[in-house]
Amino acid sequence: MVDPTAPRIAIAQYAFPVGELEANTQRIIDTVAAARDELQADLVVFPELAVSGYPPDDLLLRSDFLAAVEASLERIAAACTGGITAVVGAPVERGGVRNAALVFAQGREVACAFKRCLPSYSVFDDNRHFVAGQAPCVVSVAGSRVGVTVCEDIWAPAPAADAVADGAEVVLAINASPFHDGKPAERQAVVAGRARANGVPVVYANMVGGHDEVVYDGGSFAVDAQGSVTARLSGFAEELAVFERGEGGGWFGGIAERAEGMPALYQALVRATADYVHGNGFSGVVLGLSGGIDSALTAAVAVDALGAARVQAVMMPSPYTAQRSLDDARAAAETLGIAYHEIPIEGMMADYERALSPLFSGYPVDVTEENIQARIRGNCLMALSNKWGLMLLAAGNKSELAVGYATLYGDMCGGFAPLKDVYKTDVYRLAAYRNALGPAVPEAIIEREPTAELRADQRDQDSLPPYPVLDALLRQYLEEERPEHAIEVDGLDPAERCRVIRLLYRNEYKRRQAAPGVKVTRRAFGRDRRYPITSGWSGCQQ
Amino acid sequence: MVDPTAPRIAIAQYAFPVGELEANTQRIIDTVAAARDELQADLVVFPELAVSGYPPDDLLLRSDFLAAVEASLERIAAACTGGITAVVGAPVERGGVRNAALVFAQGREVACAFKRCLPSYSVFDDNRHFVAGQAPCVVSVAGSRVGVTVCEDIWAPAPAADAVADGAEVVLAINASPFHDGKPAERQAVVAGRARANGVPVVYANMVGGHDEVVYDGGSFAVDAQGSVTARLSGFAEELAVFERGEGGGWFGGIAERAEGMPALYQALVRATADYVHGNGFSGVVLGLSGGIDSALTAAVAVDALGAARVQAVMMPSPYTAQRSLDDARAAAETLGIAYHEIPIEGMMADYERALSPLFSGYPVDVTEENIQARIRGNCLMALSNKWGLMLLAAGNKSELAVGYATLYGDMCGGFAPLKDVYKTDVYRLAAYRNALGPAVPEAIIEREPTAELRADQRDQDSLPPYPVLDALLRQYLEEERPEHAIEVDGLDPAERCRVIRLLYRNEYKRRQAAPGVKVTRRAFGRDRRYPITSGWSGCQQ
Repeated sequence: MVDPTAPRIAIAQYAFPVGELEANTQRIIDTVAAARDELQADLVVFPELAVSGYPPDDLLLRSDFLAAVEASLERIAAACTGGITAVVGAPVERGGVRNAALVFAQGREVACAFKRCLPSYSVFDDNRHFVAGQAPCVVSVAGSRVGVTVCEDIWAPAPAADAVADGAEVVLAINASPFHDGKPAERQAVVAGRARANGVPVVYANMVGGHDEVVYDGGSFAVDAQGSVTARLSGFAEELAVFERGEGGGWFGGIAERAEGMPALYQALVRATADYVHGNGFSGVVLGLSGGIDSALTAAVAVDALGAARVQAVMMPSPYTAQRSLDDARAAAETLGIAYHEIPIEGMMADYERALSPLFSGYPVDVTEENIQARIRGNCLMALSNKWGLMLLAAGNKSELAVGYATLYGDMCGGFAPLKDVYKTDVYRLAAYRNALGPAVPEAIIEREPTAELRADQRDQDSLPPYPVLDALLRQYLEEERPEHAIEVDGLDPAERCRVIRLLYRNEYKRRQAAPGVKVTRRAFGRDRRYPITSGWSGCQQ
Repeated sequence: MVDPTAPRIAIAQYAFPVGELEANTQRIIDTVAAARDELQADLVVFPELAVSGYPPDDLLLRSDFLAAVEASLERIAAACTGGITAVVGAPVERGGVRNAALVFAQGREVACAFKRCLPSYSVFDDNRHFVAGQAPCVVSVAGSRVGVTVCEDIWAPAPAADAVADGAEVVLAINASPFHDGKPAERQAVVAGRARANGVPVVYANMVGGHDEVVYDGGSFAVDAQGSVTARLSGFAEELAVFERGEGGGWFGGIAERAEGMPALYQALVRATADYVHGNGFSGVVLGLSGGIDSALTAAVAVDALGAARVQAVMMPSPYTAQRSLDDARAAAETLGIAYHEIPIEGMMADYERALSPLFSGYPVDVTEENIQARIRGNCLMALSNKWGLMLLAAGNKSELAVGYATLYGDMCGGFAPLKDVYKTDVYRLAAYRNALGPAVPEAIIEREPTAELRADQRDQDSLPPYPVLDALLRQYLEEERPEHAIEVDGLDPAERCRVIRLLYRNEYKRRQAAPGVKVTRRAFGRDRRYPITSGWSGCQQ
């Protein structure tokens, strides 16, 4: 039973890339027309900072950038005619720079909400760039009173409550809310609670797409005044859809599945990789295949993001490379249908040895020789990246990066690291998930014990705890911020716990020079986790 | 005419490294005793967050870290006996985490100021970590009423005014205020204005020493109620000194020269480099010498920071290296008295060419081959860094890094980049300054036209505007945030201006993986300037 007296609300769950003012503006204008003319919407809702993309970061310190946004807003305002109202996120300079939701109708701005709650945690720096709003914003649209809030506002009690106190019958939240594992459920619970607390439906519109270290998962939804979901758009995909008021006063629409578990994680990686590669002007990628699972999964992500024809794989065997690794690498490439190349590095290794031997004399063989190999491979891959005009993908995972089990300027080379925030144990889970959709990562690779193959008979587990143990420790330490002594992991003794935590701190310098990757957990290395490099705190008080 | 009825104030202008809780605590305890017993001080003042170092960043999210700070504070409190009062900066958890100035006397905490103004601009993330204080803090010390403020507080009107309204006769500001060119004068002007506005003297105590991307320059000082400087400690050096009240009611002491111009800039680089290298557990460094001015000046900084015996220089000639470069590099090393090594890379270049030629076939020679050379050098230097246990210093300057005139994983390799925030034109000025103190950078190097020598007859100015033009543009664009059309540089046409600005944006990806360096200008690359990598904003609207 649709209520024809209430506004039809169109959600423009689209990607709005950072800094793409011209394209974003045109898309907003086109979407306003489509929502009005094709979907008969009364209201069309765009995500937070749709005009500029989110987060524009220090571009917001530049008056020329803000002036260009203003010029865009004038064009958008002029397009909002013919009975439609649009809510558009944009940064505006009004008593300081504001993170605003501008409401346009009849060819002009009719109202404006300034984001009141400015997050300065996790990946967010809103306090760096914005002045907080103070007042609620409620507008009339097709006979209904609509409260407008911006992203973080819906996570705090006051903004929705104030809007309702000002007469709002429905609260709108426009967002650029980054994904992490479990976030869609968390977000829904918070919004449902807000709806119940205020006795009004909430319509939650989210951005979609990858931007540098974050990916927005879409999944825009509506809840009724009891907090029940009445509509949901798909995860990680663009969609323009209408929600309309029905029984009980909620806004209804199709209810897509909520993005969760391995499917959501995998989609996050694919979407982030595609948008990073394309957003930086590359059409394809090159990557090293070692015969191990990280590079095989990275290749699968790349293929799903870009297409097999746009992925070039390179195997660079050394004398420590087992025949099995060559076979597995080739099989991985064949399974995915990507081009496969081999560059033996033995000659280059010998050449470095010759060149450096006068300066190495008297020193024992150590990790140096392993790093030289990894850096020869990094140099070769970067050379192919440069020569072919393809972005290099780094294949490292979060577990390795946490403890520094990676070579800076070696296997850490790359424009983007799709698995940067994926624990090794999740690498296995993702490979299994992806294989269930169709063959991608050969079983032989999944079954093999992890090895860096930088010296004879090397196994990851000679230097590190078993990955299930390591990952459990890291999850508790990084994501839960548990004190060292509150870490509880079966099979982890205190000395080993301390050793791992020390490694975590000591390798901050490597992570500071690491390629960007996408946040998919509660706490990702990068802008989400800001640690000193130089630090006397070892993390471990033994 | 010293006023014996007023407190003798000791300033502990010391370095307090981040995370060094045990050492910092012991040093505070020892200093309290020295100030009391040797200097007969009534009050001893430590910098902002002296216990933890500043900024501890996300260590502040960890309860074990905060608990360890609390334990330190108990020990410090117990040591403040025998008539002395101590003002100690530390993070404390009280209704959220606070950036506090704790006042200890008679073996216990007698008062506490919470930082009220939390900066979230430039390098600062205080809003990420702290809850703001609301109230002023005024304590009685030896018969005087002393208002206590924390760093940013003194840059705003309210905190000092509120303290004076509460009876403060003198305002104390404890700081960890990072240096940039011109900052000491700016700081003094602000503090003098605050003193005049409130009609009270201000005693300003600053941290000293390098921490990652910032360096604190010390230069603690006092101004009287008219804003005149009545005492000043030295710049960039540790000092424990007493200020005592004299005629007119100001606090007097020796007046050291204010750190300014090239001497200050050079000292900033030396201090930051020394503290970064030592703070990360290295005793010495290795660096590449190219025969150019950047690496020669970097070597001079390293020698002044660490001593000539702790600096190893490596020249890695290719077929494009002029004999002159070899001669100049050797002369630079000889002038500084540092070890000098040569590693010809021609053989390795040929080997990469052989290995890659099947995959390069059909593609013209381009910048790829130049990058391979730079990365061979990076690999060799990192190998020596690994083998010898020395930190690699990168020699790149700010002008190059701005426009991407550097090879990622090549000459950009390094644990620290001393000149990262130094414009090329200032590299010349610094070399001249340093040579005036004693021979460091051979004149032949200063006089030579800059070249990367990565291909035949290459000159920087074939790809870039003359450095004076480039640097003037960068200063206006980066430091002043001038809109593109307001840039005014003699000899720069609009097309060239646009080309440079586009390069600036397009090379953000390189800077994101660059080695850390120390901020010495108003706007440094790194945590001081946060830009998206993926961005549709080219900076230039042509």
